[in-house]
Formats: sequence, C-alpha cells, structure tokens
Amino acid sequence: METQVKNETLISREQLLAHWQGHRALTRRTIEAFPEKDLFSFSIGGMRTFAELAAELLAIAGPGVVGLATDEWKELDERDQAKGSKEKLLELWDKTTAQIDQYWERIPEGRFQEKLVAFGQYEDQGYCTLLYFIDNEIHHRGQGYVYLRALGIAPPAFWER
Amino acid sequence: METQVKNETLISREQLLAHWQGHRALTRRTIEAFPEKDLFSFSIGGMRTFAELAAELLAIAGPGVVGLATDEWKELDERDQAKGSKEKLLELWDKTTAQIDQYWERIPEGRFQEKLVAFGQYEDQGYCTLLYFIDNEIHHRGQGYVYLRALGIAPPAFWER
Repeated sequence: METQVKNETLISREQLLAHWQGHRALTRRTIEAFPEKDLFSFSIGGMRTFAELAAELLAIAGPGVVGLATDEWKELDERDQAKGSKEKLLELWDKTTAQIDQYWERIPEGRFQEKLVAFGQYEDQGYCTLLYFIDNEIHHRGQGYVYLRALGIAPPAFWER
Repeated sequence: METQVKNETLISREQLLAHWQGHRALTRRTIEAFPEKDLFSFSIGGMRTFAELAAELLAIAGPGVVGLATDEWKELDERDQAKGSKEKLLELWDKTTAQIDQYWERIPEGRFQEKLVAFGQYEDQGYCTLLYFIDNEIHHRGQGYVYLRALGIAPPAFWER
C-alpha cells in the first residue's frame, strides 16, 4: 500500500460523480432539445452533427469509467450506434449513466493520482483523464448550444444540472 | 479548527490551479485565433460575440479568485473593457492570469467545502463555484470554436493546455 498524501478534501468522490452525472444530465437535455432530423444532419462550418459529437461522448464515458475501475482499456469506438433515432440515442445515454454509477465505486483508491494510459493511447494521471472526459463533453455541448441557437431553439439553462 | 474529512486526494490544490490555468491558456489561444474584426463583431444565432463572452469570463475569473480567497464579493461587471482591441483583451487576460496565481494560495483551507455566496447571489460550496467558473469557460470557448470554424479558421487543439 502506498501512503496517501495527507491533504484537505477539495472534492470528494461522491461530489465528483455527482458533478459528472450533472453534466451528463444537461447534455441529455441538450440532445432532447434538437429536432430529430437536425440532431443527425445539422452542422456549422464542416463540423460533426450533434449526434456524432454525442456518439464520441458515449464512446468515452462508458468505456472510460470501466477503464478507470479496471485499468482495462479498449480502443475508442466512436461510431454512431443510434442510427438516426433520437430515442435510441437517449436510451444509449441512460445505459451509460447507469454504467457510470455501477463502476464508480469500483475505481480503486489512489487511481485518480496514478498514471494510466486511457484507451491504450492517452497517458496521464487518473484525475486528468476523468476531467478530460467531463471537459470534452462541456466543450462539445457548448457547440451544440450554437447549433440550437442557429436553428432558432433555446438551449437548456447551463446552470441547471 | 474544524476537523478535515480524511479522504484520498483526488486532486490537489496545485493540480486544480494548473487545470484552471491550462484552460485559460487555451482560451487565450482561442482569442488569438480570431481576426480582430470578427472577435468583436461575429456571432451566430443572435449570440454574443467571442469578445463579449471573453468579457464575461474575465468578470468571473479575477473577482472570483479574490472572492474565494477573501470571501468579499462584488457584483459581476461583464462590460467589455477591451473596446475593440484584441491586444487590450489579451493584456486583460494576462493580468487575470497573474491575479489568479497571486490569490490562489490565499484561499483558506476548507474553503472548497464551505458554502459561500459567489458575487453576492450564487450560493454553493466552494468547489462547485470554482468548477462553475472553469466549466463556464469551457462552454463558451467551445462556442468560440464554432465561430472560428464558421469563419473557416482552425481552432487551437483542445487537448493542448
């Protein structure tokens, strides 16, 4: 057993999980705000559709929490599994939500400060890896907000989680 | 003195500061990527220009770290101080970067778990408040990426901090 660094708690595990899932709940509402057709076809400046961005987020979040818990990493598979169905995309989203809750407690003590190689290619400490997952989702969701505004649709309130 | 919760360190103070400043460095590169004219005039779907979004980020970050350190909060002042000058905006950005480094060490132990009322109106625990500052910046910077793409400009790499 390595000695844990004694330090004040900036954020606890439970709080970090709630923070992540709060962001994911907001992304879910963002997906819901898109008309199905635009979700799978609208984009700006040659970027991906919001469904394609959501497919990336799904590819990261579920396999990511499994990787953090088990240190077994598969290659990223960002293919769109929803195939044009918003209902299917939301179903996949909810499945990942449950998977995160399930695997979160299995993340070993100390993992967030350990070096790991996420998805077999991104070497970083555990906390950087998890924050990257969250930040990447915020980043792409922010882009979805622009798509919605361009479509004349008010996005969900950013501060509600 | 209150007893600190004994817990593993998910993220240390130094790491959290570096995380925040890393994001701010990326936002700085995003500001730099805009032609000056577009920075202050381009927008999509009735949204604010990227300079206006950056003014909001500046209004939060500097006074925000002072508030975390001292628990003295002023009202948010999101007025654009750069007045059409990209150089001036970057100068304000760098001033805030130094201010964050300066005040960070003065944030009292336990503050991140305490309830506070940021800017006299947003009640939350310290860690939520700081994560909100960071997340809000990621969110708006992601929107800036869409503006850049719509202008035919490649944004800076998201993963470089």
